[in-house]
Amino acid sequence: MIDLHDTFKQISKLDISGYGKDFLLTWEKSNDDIKATLFLAELFKEMHRQGLTYKTFDSGLALSIFRDNSTRTRFSFASAANALGLEVADLDEEKSQIAHGETVRETANMISFMTDVIGIRDDMFLGEGNTYMREVAEAVQTGYEEGNLHQRPALVNLQCDIDHPTQSMSDLAMLQKTFGSLENLQGKKIAMSWAYSPSYGKPLSVPQGIVGLLTRFGMDVTLAHPEGYGLIPDVIDIAGRQAKASGGSFSVVNDMKEAFDGADIVYPKSWAPYHVMEKRTELLKASDRDGLKSLEKEALANNAGFTDWECDEEKMSVTKDGKALYMHCLPADITDVSCEKGEVSKSVFDRYRKDTYIEASFKPFVIASMMFLGRLDDPINTLGKILNKSEKRF
Amino acid sequence: MIDLHDTFKQISKLDISGYGKDFLLTWEKSNDDIKATLFLAELFKEMHRQGLTYKTFDSGLALSIFRDNSTRTRFSFASAANALGLEVADLDEEKSQIAHGETVRETANMISFMTDVIGIRDDMFLGEGNTYMREVAEAVQTGYEEGNLHQRPALVNLQCDIDHPTQSMSDLAMLQKTFGSLENLQGKKIAMSWAYSPSYGKPLSVPQGIVGLLTRFGMDVTLAHPEGYGLIPDVIDIAGRQAKASGGSFSVVNDMKEAFDGADIVYPKSWAPYHVMEKRTELLKASDRDGLKSLEKEALANNAGFTDWECDEEKMSVTKDGKALYMHCLPADITDVSCEKGEVSKSVFDRYRKDTYIEASFKPFVIASMMFLGRLDDPINTLGKILNKSEKRF
Amino acid sequence: MIDLHDTFKQISKLDISGYGKDFLLTWEKSNDDIKATLFLAELFKEMHRQGLTYKTFDSGLALSIFRDNSTRTRFSFASAANALGLEVADLDEEKSQIAHGETVRETANMISFMTDVIGIRDDMFLGEGNTYMREVAEAVQTGYEEGNLHQRPALVNLQCDIDHPTQSMSDLAMLQKTFGSLENLQGKKIAMSWAYSPSYGKPLSVPQGIVGLLTRFGMDVTLAHPEGYGLIPDVIDIAGRQAKASGGSFSVVNDMKEAFDGADIVYPKSWAPYHVMEKRTELLKASDRDGLKSLEKEALANNAGFTDWECDEEKMSVTKDGKALYMHCLPADITDVSCEKGEVSKSVFDRYRKDTYIEASFKPFVIASMMFLGRLDDPINTLGKILNKSEKRF
Repeated sequence: MIDLHDTFKQISKLDISGYGKDFLLTWEKSNDDIKATLFLAELFKEMHRQGLTYKTFDSGLALSIFRDNSTRTRFSFASAANALGLEVADLDEEKSQIAHGETVRETANMISFMTDVIGIRDDMFLGEGNTYMREVAEAVQTGYEEGNLHQRPALVNLQCDIDHPTQSMSDLAMLQKTFGSLENLQGKKIAMSWAYSPSYGKPLSVPQGIVGLLTRFGMDVTLAHPEGYGLIPDVIDIAGRQAKASGGSFSVVNDMKEAFDGADIVYPKSWAPYHVMEKRTELLKASDRDGLKSLEKEALANNAGFTDWECDEEKMSVTKDGKALYMHCLPADITDVSCEKGEVSKSVFDRYRKDTYIEASFKPFVIASMMFLGRLDDPINTLGKILNKSEKRF
Repeated sequence: MIDLHDTFKQISKLDISGYGKDFLLTWEKSNDDIKATLFLAELFKEMHRQGLTYKTFDSGLALSIFRDNSTRTRFSFASAANALGLEVADLDEEKSQIAHGETVRETANMISFMTDVIGIRDDMFLGEGNTYMREVAEAVQTGYEEGNLHQRPALVNLQCDIDHPTQSMSDLAMLQKTFGSLENLQGKKIAMSWAYSPSYGKPLSVPQGIVGLLTRFGMDVTLAHPEGYGLIPDVIDIAGRQAKASGGSFSVVNDMKEAFDGADIVYPKSWAPYHVMEKRTELLKASDRDGLKSLEKEALANNAGFTDWECDEEKMSVTKDGKALYMHCLPADITDVSCEKGEVSKSVFDRYRKDTYIEASFKPFVIASMMFLGRLDDPINTLGKILNKSEKRF
Repeated sequence: MIDLHDTFKQISKLDISGYGKDFLLTWEKSNDDIKATLFLAELFKEMHRQGLTYKTFDSGLALSIFRDNSTRTRFSFASAANALGLEVADLDEEKSQIAHGETVRETANMISFMTDVIGIRDDMFLGEGNTYMREVAEAVQTGYEEGNLHQRPALVNLQCDIDHPTQSMSDLAMLQKTFGSLENLQGKKIAMSWAYSPSYGKPLSVPQGIVGLLTRFGMDVTLAHPEGYGLIPDVIDIAGRQAKASGGSFSVVNDMKEAFDGADIVYPKSWAPYHVMEKRTELLKASDRDGLKSLEKEALANNAGFTDWECDEEKMSVTKDGKALYMHCLPADITDVSCEKGEVSKSVFDRYRKDTYIEASFKPFVIASMMFLGRLDDPINTLGKILNKSEKRF
């Protein structure tokens, strides 16, 4: 439980003058931007717990574009928008004319006349999702400058091919809650590890988001994966540079247990190798079904060599006091529950189930925070007024 | 037209201390709970008629899960949520990852962080719909107790395999309006009768809901159906016990006209025999298309032996003064209108069309009432404040 | 930029006593009705630009029925509803039971208990869309008179087989903005011209909407199309009569360049010939796939004879000072962008792209205006109160 007014004071001391309208990659944001986003999410969460409203808009649309399936992020987005007073309008590309040759620029403008925020999930195609988000951002920026949009909608990345900032920021909030403060994260060891899954083609954005964010807080970040399961090289570079600058470390190993050794936190999660995702993107673009089938076969066969990359009790036992915090973005592939052999054993998952739910519970508030800081011209001033009113939600 | 303040007084005298968060089966609710739900629905309806608002929440989500098609219940749910200030968020299981092995518990928690009410329709599988609702209820209860949910969402059964409480409560409201009071229902005869339809597989929940609710008010309830078209035995037991306790009667006959004889109210409605629904559930689970086809064929052939189970002028003539109230949950299979031979003749339906529309018009307000009483800690106090304010909707 | 209070004064001097609940065809509306709709749209737009709210309802549903794909109109409708305080509820005919034999009357009533406005797009079938809208209007009118609806929802035509009033009114707003006033439109020449497109089956409602509206303002309206590409004869008659009454002119020519000669405004847009749409409607109703394929082939072959009906620099050069305003409802078929050969050349479109976006930007406000004027009993009085409050949207 945090104190609302202390948190407000902390936020108001930060320099968020360069925050910008969009939240696309955590590593484009300054440390103060990251902290403001995090603290505001926690403040909104505590207000909700206390039954206080932080409704900011009396009307306005929050536009969502989901180019991949989603349950939790869809509801987190809807929750965040609703709490701020915005109504969700989903751009369903099947029902719209988007498939019929409309350019991104035109569509982005046509649906933004009264839109305050835009959330996009586009994580299927390597090299495309984040690019698409930037095209939309540029389109609405131009529309605003040219005068056909009265306001510049703020964009929130709800998962792309490169980063998953609403997830990694929720994870950061969970760590802050668990360890007491961001400062306390210094020197803590986290193992972001690949884990076996009987499926293929899982996006890289979660592990990339984790190493791209947590290397900024002086942590010892170990990325573990079998040979050939690497992430996008640029993100690895960024993680290395950030670790150095923050006084932490970043290393890549090819052994799950080695990574777990002495870890305070473990994050075992499957993903597809970078080169498989590249190949898959090509095949998807070419609608090459046979190619996709044989790639899947090949990738699964490859995965099958690493079924021992499971987060089980034995591996947990080598972590710090055998009690590392287990994290997952959910849904996890749980051995004997959702599959025969998966990312995590049933007993480990069961022990941490409650924690993973709490980890997830930050997401709606993280999104609300990104919307609030991106959309408003003077968010701190508005926030102060909302806190002073201290009105009940019902 | 009812008096708002008299109705409020009536409600505030009732003991709803055991109301609970969820409305799943009418026969789990006390008489006072049922009355409170009914009177509050009528009060909300009258407020709406007078252009008064009863908006209670300034933000919050009303989550709907429709596992079967729906028009009227979908809109009734949306209307109820909106009137209370909640925004509908529909869990579309095709767009979500629910099909990919997520457990009910996990999903229920993931979508409930900022959810105030959950409405579920799940009436396709015998033995499953109500069970699913209880799983969701338990999941959010645990989530609330474990602290990852700040609030316990209230559940509303929008039709399951056993009961259809939002329908039966709307029907009860119609009867109260027609006969002046619940007390006046004592000794009134209602014929809940099977009727012929050229389709098959219609749920049992409407007739079960009717005999499960109306036997509580001292009415003479006659259930009529051809041999072999029985309802779930448990519900029949409950109806019998309730009729005895309320000083009414409950009987089952195999003749439509016998049931109509002297009836004050008739409710002719098709349903599938219990044993057909059991068989169908098995086949649906097994995705046995051929089995389903032959079951349909068999069931329709069986139905065809009972085309004279139509509510026509001749049968209406034997009801009380030939003027029984005709009821239906809509849409009805109307002979010569929606089919060659159906549940009701055109002339009978036309005479009562307006009444069936009014019967249906209670549903949004019944749902709003269930949400309000289930979700709020002190609903009577909140209601009093809303009535005192007496604010216009626009 | 307009002055809010001047505009309010202008509106309040108009006689809108016969406005009615529904906006189905512009030519059913009086000149004062048209002006009130237009001025109020502009006033709402300016309020939005200034960050002022015109939220009117504290709750209520805005029901949309889209029987054809739509992006921009869908978002315009959602924006308009949201700005007025109404929540969009979409009647998805796939998810509802509508396909299962429910009558229009019944469904219209069932979904309208708490509905304040209904927007319908139904432009696929010639002779059907507008008829369907009138059936819905009649159904809710009767429902209101019979007492099962507490309020009479207002209907807005979001495009039918005959007219596209939210588009033509947005176009009129664009013309007023460009030329300074409606009075200034007198004597201005507009060329509403067919243009080549590599697709077929585009509705007639845009050109019909344009000639059906702009002939009322003393403009010289020229309709141009290849022989055999005529519009619905009734609309042509109305356009002729209106042109005469307003002191303008209306002529039909079979040459694009002739129409462009000296034009102040050009509106080059493809549509299917009337007789093709009639034939197509028959085939669609009969689900005659082979017939539809051969009709498409035939129609495209016919189109191919008119690829020179492109709005290119050469044709633009013969317009007034070579600088006619180019208009389009979007999306346009742009040569070398969205197709090999289309309605407009890339260079012409690029020069006017910004203008077409601004043209489109009026639509949400036009729809809000139609909702407001149709739904409220005393809209001017309510509008006055809203303006006096002058509250910020956030």
